[in-house]
Amino acid sequence: MIVSSMPSAILLIHSPDRKGLIAAVSDFLYKHGANVLHADQHRDNDLGLFFMRVEWDLQDFDLDQQALRRLFAPIAESFEMQWRLEYQTTRPAMAIFVSKYLHCLLDLLHRHQSGDLDCSIPLIISNHEDARAHAEFYGIPFHCIPTTAGNKGQAERDHLELLAANGVSLIVLARYMQVLSPAFVTQYPQRIINVHHSFLPAFSGARPYHAALQRGVKLIGATSHYVTDVLDEGPIIEQDVTRVSHRDQLDDLVRKGRDLERTVLGRAVAWHLERRILCYGNKTVVFD
Amino acid sequence: MIVSSMPSAILLIHSPDRKGLIAAVSDFLYKHGANVLHADQHRDNDLGLFFMRVEWDLQDFDLDQQALRRLFAPIAESFEMQWRLEYQTTRPAMAIFVSKYLHCLLDLLHRHQSGDLDCSIPLIISNHEDARAHAEFYGIPFHCIPTTAGNKGQAERDHLELLAANGVSLIVLARYMQVLSPAFVTQYPQRIINVHHSFLPAFSGARPYHAALQRGVKLIGATSHYVTDVLDEGPIIEQDVTRVSHRDQLDDLVRKGRDLERTVLGRAVAWHLERRILCYGNKTVVFD
Amino acid sequence: MIVSSMPSAILLIHSPDRKGLIAAVSDFLYKHGANVLHADQHRDNDLGLFFMRVEWDLQDFDLDQQALRRLFAPIAESFEMQWRLEYQTTRPAMAIFVSKYLHCLLDLLHRHQSGDLDCSIPLIISNHEDARAHAEFYGIPFHCIPTTAGNKGQAERDHLELLAANGVSLIVLARYMQVLSPAFVTQYPQRIINVHHSFLPAFSGARPYHAALQRGVKLIGATSHYVTDVLDEGPIIEQDVTRVSHRDQLDDLVRKGRDLERTVLGRAVAWHLERRILCYGNKTVVFD
Amino acid sequence: MIVSSMPSAILLIHSPDRKGLIAAVSDFLYKHGANVLHADQHRDNDLGLFFMRVEWDLQDFDLDQQALRRLFAPIAESFEMQWRLEYQTTRPAMAIFVSKYLHCLLDLLHRHQSGDLDCSIPLIISNHEDARAHAEFYGIPFHCIPTTAGNKGQAERDHLELLAANGVSLIVLARYMQVLSPAFVTQYPQRIINVHHSFLPAFSGARPYHAALQRGVKLIGATSHYVTDVLDEGPIIEQDVTRVSHRDQLDDLVRKGRDLERTVLGRAVAWHLERRILCYGNKTVVFD
Repeated sequence: MIVSSMPSAILLIHSPDRKGLIAAVSDFLYKHGANVLHADQHRDNDLGLFFMRVEWDLQDFDLDQQALRRLFAPIAESFEMQWRLEYQTTRPAMAIFVSKYLHCLLDLLHRHQSGDLDCSIPLIISNHEDARAHAEFYGIPFHCIPTTAGNKGQAERDHLELLAANGVSLIVLARYMQVLSPAFVTQYPQRIINVHHSFLPAFSGARPYHAALQRGVKLIGATSHYVTDVLDEGPIIEQDVTRVSHRDQLDDLVRKGRDLERTVLGRAVAWHLERRILCYGNKTVVFD
Repeated sequence: MIVSSMPSAILLIHSPDRKGLIAAVSDFLYKHGANVLHADQHRDNDLGLFFMRVEWDLQDFDLDQQALRRLFAPIAESFEMQWRLEYQTTRPAMAIFVSKYLHCLLDLLHRHQSGDLDCSIPLIISNHEDARAHAEFYGIPFHCIPTTAGNKGQAERDHLELLAANGVSLIVLARYMQVLSPAFVTQYPQRIINVHHSFLPAFSGARPYHAALQRGVKLIGATSHYVTDVLDEGPIIEQDVTRVSHRDQLDDLVRKGRDLERTVLGRAVAWHLERRILCYGNKTVVFD
Repeated sequence: MIVSSMPSAILLIHSPDRKGLIAAVSDFLYKHGANVLHADQHRDNDLGLFFMRVEWDLQDFDLDQQALRRLFAPIAESFEMQWRLEYQTTRPAMAIFVSKYLHCLLDLLHRHQSGDLDCSIPLIISNHEDARAHAEFYGIPFHCIPTTAGNKGQAERDHLELLAANGVSLIVLARYMQVLSPAFVTQYPQRIINVHHSFLPAFSGARPYHAALQRGVKLIGATSHYVTDVLDEGPIIEQDVTRVSHRDQLDDLVRKGRDLERTVLGRAVAWHLERRILCYGNKTVVFD
Repeated sequence: MIVSSMPSAILLIHSPDRKGLIAAVSDFLYKHGANVLHADQHRDNDLGLFFMRVEWDLQDFDLDQQALRRLFAPIAESFEMQWRLEYQTTRPAMAIFVSKYLHCLLDLLHRHQSGDLDCSIPLIISNHEDARAHAEFYGIPFHCIPTTAGNKGQAERDHLELLAANGVSLIVLARYMQVLSPAFVTQYPQRIINVHHSFLPAFSGARPYHAALQRGVKLIGATSHYVTDVLDEGPIIEQDVTRVSHRDQLDDLVRKGRDLERTVLGRAVAWHLERRILCYGNKTVVFD
């Protein structure tokens, strides 16, 4: 999928499966001059659910955002849709949290510089100093807020303040080694992406490479997912694996895993920014 | 994608990219009572082309095939569509051509028996006797027509006669080691699927595993494609690869390649039967 | 690795890591005229363990099996080796257990026919009749022993009798849907290979595809492993995965999984027969 | 494979296949107190060739480099070995050549910083200024030598002078978009590693992503190889692929390809530095 360079709008719909739904949406958009760039639908037959993503360019579209919301609402209601409207014209602000392992952070920074991630990065937050030089090199404000058992509540309040001050709408945990409190997570529903260094649900929790070595698996993996209250249990966005053998010791797993982690995190962040992900239940639809 | 068990119709469209096209099609189907099961669209921005596949169940649809064709024709014309209408109700007849290597044939027969391939298999044609026992076990008529340099023309006339007599609409070359003549190929445009034992365009032509070994590649592949006049140059449907190392000798490449060949051929045949493939230029769109 | 067609012997060694070990083994073999075909070593640095597989052709070797065992024993003792001597000259007898899903069985039978599996298959055992026709087609005696909650003990006694009568040294569970009792497993330590239809340790136990769908994973897997007392916990031999998306419903997972299952089982069986697998702790070394 | 942190020596052998060769080498090393860390052998049956890599720690080894070379020479001669002796104690100096695409360079710099690449990087050479800021951030001298059709000879002389002055033993072309002259290549036989953005031998030469898009392949690849006189024809070290679909336009191929390129280049460089690669004919043995 190519992110369009012209201003575009995106409608993400999730509803009971009803006849005439596609026609109603297509018709509405067409009547108002929309040139549809992408349209993708999915039906979950078991659950009787319907999912749709449609993106159109705004050039000849005759409604502004407010009018669009007002006129589309009754259609949505008649089909019992849950819907989300997004404008590619607004660049989201993304905050990156990192600890001591920098490979995921550097990967995101380089993808951003290459133009792959359509967002601003107003700040990087860490509980360690390791990433400061890199952050400064890329000209991104760096906030080191050391976290101890004692100050965790205060640290999170500081984080929230910084995020609000910077208008952050997406938080990426790039191997950030602290567990977020439910109170924090609740503030950013489906807006916090984490990378876990295992093929979930295998080896959730701490030290997954140790556990993988112990179990003698022949493939190791990494998983990017939205963060929810339950550790490592949020909706999975992307996973990948790589082959290991008896020759691979712990250091090898860690090294091979690094390449996986940054890849699955990079993909998840790009897809989120392209508004291609729709959550339902504890699962994701990732429209291609 | 689940093949629907209820009777359904499929429309495959290929046209210049025009505003209102999705709305026009959706609207037409909705007005006639179609319950859309799947709809997928694709725009090729570089070429300014639009592709669409829409499948709907026929239960409440108020047009028969003839009426549908007549009423849809003016819409198609106004958008300059190339279009194809297919009914899942008709089970296509598939002929399998095979020589001495049986792994692709056996794989297709077992997929068919498992219900993965929605077609009949009225005959198997070979230039050797090797597959006869298997064909008979599965209760499929087996025709051995030995092919020599001298009798090739006659052999192909015999093939065409058998295919016509059995109403065959799809021919699968399951490691059939004879090159088909252009005259033969012309009779079944985009209806002959071959598997080539390399990652095309690398190692086209004879003895690709020898060539791969000689070049020292670290991955070998297989490719399924529609057959055209030009050997190994037809539209690619599916490809896959597997890792090899310096330890792998020719026999290992052949053995590892077998697993690839049957997989990429099996997928291509299933997708064709599900009417998910649309050709344009020398390429394929495979709708998911 | 090419299985040598000439008679060969294989020594599999597992010992504490000691200086001079390779030299001692190489020297011993050389002095007795061995032409080494393959030699592979592995050190587990963390555990301080050393693993070795060496295969040599027997043509000019001046010791028979008995003499070899007698003369090698003191060397083994001095290095505290655990060792296993195997002769490629003896073709092992393999029994296949199957229930109603036949894809793994058919795959093994075809690999055997293609010459990929160097063993005899004196019998197929099942708790259902489904595989009988295929077994008979391949000329392999088929024993249907229905298993109920009540007769499980007797069924296993029948199995053991059949296995003993046929000199079976390897049992392959090709989607055999019964749990073996510890008493049975104890009779064939590291000689029973199972395929589980998930990426272990994720989704162990019953209905792994249902669980995978429920969790919303983006890859599904299959695992072949030696059977031990603890269900799905034995040493892993091979694993593989394939990509799934939100479009894949349960049937798609089952269908895609079939291709994985037969591949990971086929590889495990071939490697076992080539005496390439060495178990230690609950893990495997698979020599390439 | 873990690179040992203690000083070690590595012997890479390539010879006609002869009985007693392993024993002779093992015995020699053992007698001089070597503790073998890794030993790997490979026989190419078709060519009758034998390959061996053996690494031992130098702690109790009783020969210095000179004595080792003198005493091993007659053994090597009697088996007609081609052999190479390397000491892990010497950290090789690696030069990186880059043009305008920085993803491979940044990847190498970060792998180096993470401790994955056991070498020094005394300089980065480019025909453009794009990489200067990154080079300076990592504290590596950066030399921009613009290259035009007219000054190519002089530019290469400048390069050679810089390489010699810095004692460079490995040159990595990290998407360096200039073809090296045969005169240059000859100076660094099997010491120049390039990454080509296709699955060689498919799409050699210029603009491989354009060619891949044109052909309609379903997978794209990248290849790392040693540079020889013939463009894109040198011994392949590593290859990998990723899936593409009809949805992927040129920009998507370029973006997906970037992840492949850096991975296959990173692996090739690491393996070279670990002295795990042995060339013969136009192929590589990569010992694991």
